[in-house]
Amino acid sequence: MMDTRTHFHKALDHLKTRLIELGNKAEDAIEFAVQGYLSRDTAACSRVLAMESEIDLAERHIDQLALDILATQQPLAVDLRFITACMKINSDLERVGDHAAAIARRGLTETRLPAIELPIDLSRIAARSAGMIQQALNAFITQDLEMANAVLKTDDLRGRIDDQTWIALVGRMHQAPETLEQLLDALIVVRDLSRVADHATNIAEDVILWVSGMDVRHTAGRIPAAGE
Amino acid sequence: MMDTRTHFHKALDHLKTRLIELGNKAEDAIEFAVQGYLSRDTAACSRVLAMESEIDLAERHIDQLALDILATQQPLAVDLRFITACMKINSDLERVGDHAAAIARRGLTETRLPAIELPIDLSRIAARSAGMIQQALNAFITQDLEMANAVLKTDDLRGRIDDQTWIALVGRMHQAPETLEQLLDALIVVRDLSRVADHATNIAEDVILWVSGMDVRHTAGRIPAAGE
Repeated sequence: MMDTRTHFHKALDHLKTRLIELGNKAEDAIEFAVQGYLSRDTAACSRVLAMESEIDLAERHIDQLALDILATQQPLAVDLRFITACMKINSDLERVGDHAAAIARRGLTETRLPAIELPIDLSRIAARSAGMIQQALNAFITQDLEMANAVLKTDDLRGRIDDQTWIALVGRMHQAPETLEQLLDALIVVRDLSRVADHATNIAEDVILWVSGMDVRHTAGRIPAAGE
Repeated sequence: MMDTRTHFHKALDHLKTRLIELGNKAEDAIEFAVQGYLSRDTAACSRVLAMESEIDLAERHIDQLALDILATQQPLAVDLRFITACMKINSDLERVGDHAAAIARRGLTETRLPAIELPIDLSRIAARSAGMIQQALNAFITQDLEMANAVLKTDDLRGRIDDQTWIALVGRMHQAPETLEQLLDALIVVRDLSRVADHATNIAEDVILWVSGMDVRHTAGRIPAAGE
């Protein structure tokens, strides 16, 4: 019995470690993609596309790990919640990789257009989105509800910043229509980064659901509903 | 034993039925949102926002159903794959609802701008995306691999159509810069519809993974890897 439990907890630890590695890679991919896009560094953009392939592979592997644990260990209550949270976070991180790749692809085609100065600080917007992913991952690692809630609060501020970004880009499109294509590309990159922030929010919510469920010990054999 | 199995299969059927209902609602939400957007029908747009709330509630309920089955029935092999496929499809459908709501919100703010004629057929693009969701759901209902593969094939054609749409909208922005805001809104709606098609593709892939796994009977106790 002891051996089985030890094996079980090792499997859970392994799952968690792989997921954290994936998260770090997804976060790196976002930062590299925006740097590559801004500096028109085609090597950096190509590297992000390779990272996306690695992220996709890692996502499948993690999904398989989670399914194997479900199939062979039949976990209950908090362990079951942990595994399903991992599966959801895994899916969010894979999509973060997709957004990184979309930005990198845009960076590769951007080289056909003259470089312009953007009326927005894309590096800062990228750092904010990548920072939200990092904070959500840290909340996952440390099971810290407050940190997870901080991600949701950061997200609340986002609407206004997104509006300002939109206004700045559209204003410039009117002033300098000859740079319309570049400004449109920037607008789409901003939206990709906004979706990355959405995924960070999803991850934070999954952490909250998992960790707050851990305190509901009297519900063994039944999974507490969200909000309980 | 018989009673337990009957209960188990009833629970699986219930899960499937709820998911199909959610899928139909998500598909309707997309069509209503684009109709509301195009006809500047604020009542229709508001109805889509109410549908999004219902979709979110249904998603949580379905997630809970799936978790309850995992916790109480400890399903194996094909049943486990079915339940995890349902959880993933559930998450995709919830995001389809988010995109419908985003389009509806854009429809509500669009009324502050003069109506213009668009250089693209947004109804057709919406019908294509909603049709892909419907086809993916039908593949799920009938466990039809060919139908699921047809969704992936439709998706392959999408890149070229998306490029043409982009070119048409950007061309018009140059020609008629006084309609830039409306054209930008349309461009974002097109991208939302493109993400809906992505979700249809995800659902089709989940169906393929689930159904093709069903034929691998000799792997009882172990979940076949993707591609096996």
